[in-house]
Amino acid sequence: MQQVLKYLAANKKRFIEEMSELLSIPSISTKAEHAQDMAKAAKWVATHLRGAGLVDVKVHETAGNPVVVGHGKPVPGAPTVLIYGHYDVQPAEPLELWKTLPFEPTVKGSKIFCRGSADDKGQLFIYLKVIEAFEKAGGGLPLNVKVLIEGEEEIGSPSLVPFLRKHKKELAADAILISDTHMHAYNTPSITTGLRGLTCAEVRVVTAKGDQHSGTYGGTIANPCQVLAELLVACKDPKSGKIKIPGFYEGVRKLTAKQKRSLAETPHDDVKYVKGLGSPQVFGERGYSTLERAGARPTFEVNGIWGGYIGEGVKTVLPCEASAKISMRLVADQNPAAVFKALKAHLQAVAPPHCKVTVKKMDNDGQPVMVDPAFPGMTIACDAVEKVFGKPPIMALEGGSIPIVADFQSVLKAPPLLLGFGLPDDNLHAPNEKFDLRMFDRGMKTIAYFFADYAAAGT
Amino acid sequence: MQQVLKYLAANKKRFIEEMSELLSIPSISTKAEHAQDMAKAAKWVATHLRGAGLVDVKVHETAGNPVVVGHGKPVPGAPTVLIYGHYDVQPAEPLELWKTLPFEPTVKGSKIFCRGSADDKGQLFIYLKVIEAFEKAGGGLPLNVKVLIEGEEEIGSPSLVPFLRKHKKELAADAILISDTHMHAYNTPSITTGLRGLTCAEVRVVTAKGDQHSGTYGGTIANPCQVLAELLVACKDPKSGKIKIPGFYEGVRKLTAKQKRSLAETPHDDVKYVKGLGSPQVFGERGYSTLERAGARPTFEVNGIWGGYIGEGVKTVLPCEASAKISMRLVADQNPAAVFKALKAHLQAVAPPHCKVTVKKMDNDGQPVMVDPAFPGMTIACDAVEKVFGKPPIMALEGGSIPIVADFQSVLKAPPLLLGFGLPDDNLHAPNEKFDLRMFDRGMKTIAYFFADYAAAGT
Repeated sequence: MQQVLKYLAANKKRFIEEMSELLSIPSISTKAEHAQDMAKAAKWVATHLRGAGLVDVKVHETAGNPVVVGHGKPVPGAPTVLIYGHYDVQPAEPLELWKTLPFEPTVKGSKIFCRGSADDKGQLFIYLKVIEAFEKAGGGLPLNVKVLIEGEEEIGSPSLVPFLRKHKKELAADAILISDTHMHAYNTPSITTGLRGLTCAEVRVVTAKGDQHSGTYGGTIANPCQVLAELLVACKDPKSGKIKIPGFYEGVRKLTAKQKRSLAETPHDDVKYVKGLGSPQVFGERGYSTLERAGARPTFEVNGIWGGYIGEGVKTVLPCEASAKISMRLVADQNPAAVFKALKAHLQAVAPPHCKVTVKKMDNDGQPVMVDPAFPGMTIACDAVEKVFGKPPIMALEGGSIPIVADFQSVLKAPPLLLGFGLPDDNLHAPNEKFDLRMFDRGMKTIAYFFADYAAAGT
Repeated sequence: MQQVLKYLAANKKRFIEEMSELLSIPSISTKAEHAQDMAKAAKWVATHLRGAGLVDVKVHETAGNPVVVGHGKPVPGAPTVLIYGHYDVQPAEPLELWKTLPFEPTVKGSKIFCRGSADDKGQLFIYLKVIEAFEKAGGGLPLNVKVLIEGEEEIGSPSLVPFLRKHKKELAADAILISDTHMHAYNTPSITTGLRGLTCAEVRVVTAKGDQHSGTYGGTIANPCQVLAELLVACKDPKSGKIKIPGFYEGVRKLTAKQKRSLAETPHDDVKYVKGLGSPQVFGERGYSTLERAGARPTFEVNGIWGGYIGEGVKTVLPCEASAKISMRLVADQNPAAVFKALKAHLQAVAPPHCKVTVKKMDNDGQPVMVDPAFPGMTIACDAVEKVFGKPPIMALEGGSIPIVADFQSVLKAPPLLLGFGLPDDNLHAPNEKFDLRMFDRGMKTIAYFFADYAAAGT
């Protein structure tokens, strides 16, 4: 292990030069004109995986951009990890807000500025260098390693699930290391242990076959906007913020004492939080802190609402229909399909007889993810982080969804480990994206410890 | 009186020829290219008023179309009535749906088809002919008559209030006869005795300075669409339909037993009514019939609602603001300004601390109108209708607003009498507008009786 750490320290300058090569390829997946850059980046990754000592490295063509897969030399009896990253990046626009050229990697102090530096080229590069260090200086990798780097993450990974299904056996692993998240702060290490799932609906209330004159008919039949408002209030209590859909909370896992403590220890200030958002006050489910509500509790949110006349001035119309778009963020172990069903049943049960209510399912269900804190890989990851950062990581719960995590979980049936080394101010998807080279350094060391300790723990 | 009725019967054919002259002038007030037609129609009316025996007939220029005013010869000691009508008409479009030419008056059976036949040329013509009959055959008008015919009713009568203010003294009267309404059916005579007023508001709920990611922030701050829904529900009870704004019902006049009976006797069938509207069921303030709710009770209606993402598909956004347009129809003696104030105060009182609510007043207040059933003119009008139609009129309450009625009331301080002789199927503002010549006939007789009886009752 000492040899590995020494190698990582000794070659840092070269690593940054190599990382800069990859960063300078404008592999923007959403723009068709960059097709050649996508191929170039995939090829660069493949070449580099071979250089690091991996075998069976292949650039797989897909319906979209290539997927690069490589394998470590087999280590019989040792556990297997699958490493995931993506070589595609977001567009750089608005260009005028960049202080350096977006595809000209520029080191300033401890930071390297470039589109893709944190999301995700710099981060996946951590894993490649650890593999190289073990192969060149550590007597070979101590465990079975598989690497999968895709080129469509920024456009929703359309080719990933078909690819996983097709290569299920080849990609089988005991744990999936995902390099695409961030830590709470440089001095507050964290591991993302939960991601919320999602199910969406469109609710439509119809009260008549056409809009009517609000003078002649107002007061005689129902107003669809008013009924829609009633339905929304029937779904969420104005005072407690509790969601009132029967069965909604079914399956919601309670946080363990350790998770609750970890969230409580996460630096957070409600006053600063609402100031940043320009909100008068926080609001949400009573009995839970803001971080608990954001990560560990499900939501019912109106994403959009519309009905009647929405132009300028007055139109004294009695509208005949109104609609709302609803998204519900879910936590483990809620089932998106069951939650949608519960919503639909509730709305139809509470709908008054003077209207027709339809509830349409949207096609974007996402499974919630919660990494079992008792999963040995997690304990080992925490120890590895503590060794490098000097303190144990916070068990972070992200409010958003990373669909690929649930995809990996559902297709490969292996637990994900979100070992990312970005920072919240990395400017992902924004001008002046950067990656902190101190996090790059700590990331390599953490992964090196993880490899060694996870191998030592056995399968 | 017998001479008057005889004269009306004997000259019917000529009347229809004369009415057709007026109808054939395309006096469309909303189209600038018809300016000459407006002048022509005004001149025709003035000439005709003189021909009927009125004096001091003047075509007054205004900022818009001319107003024609004429006076009967003074009848000292007798009461004074002011007759209102309008010579302007709606555009005829869509032309392709007319079965006859819109400005070529065509008699088919008992009906005359032409734009403006019912709204309002044919109706105002009733009054002119009754004046003529009294002057030519009845020994002169039995009461003081003033006639005011304007040319901007279909564009909101912008010149009327300034004109009324300027000529307040000249136009002073004991009652104002308005010729611009309809009866319930040919065999169900009615007099409109109430019109609802109006006040409108725009409500805006803001919860943050910008839209947020519904994953990262959902559940931590309020959702403005949800808060708006809560506010709307706080304004109207979902079960009873009662408006929950404190002070809202202040001033609402209870219907008299006679008014209630009259509404109950009005032919109406809720089943047919909702079938016509395509509604599953009627809904409104509990404890009142549909006709009572439409005419005698105030309303709180959402005319439009919007917030967040309203395009196609899914956008999992946590919006930062949502708005609703509200109109409240009012009944006598509610005060529009006071009702708006009550709404604003209520919304600000119930608004939760996690949002900012603004309530904007719209500039279209309308005073409610309720003709005092004890007003002698009303009793006499009912008797006149009964003499001609064979049954007493229903005391109808209209849900909509006719702003000029409130204007007459507020400027001239005289009670309005809505003695119109249209029918609900006259196709006002639509293709194939018609006027029933049987109603024309009955209308002339009714007004003749009214003049005689009102004069006899004295001031």
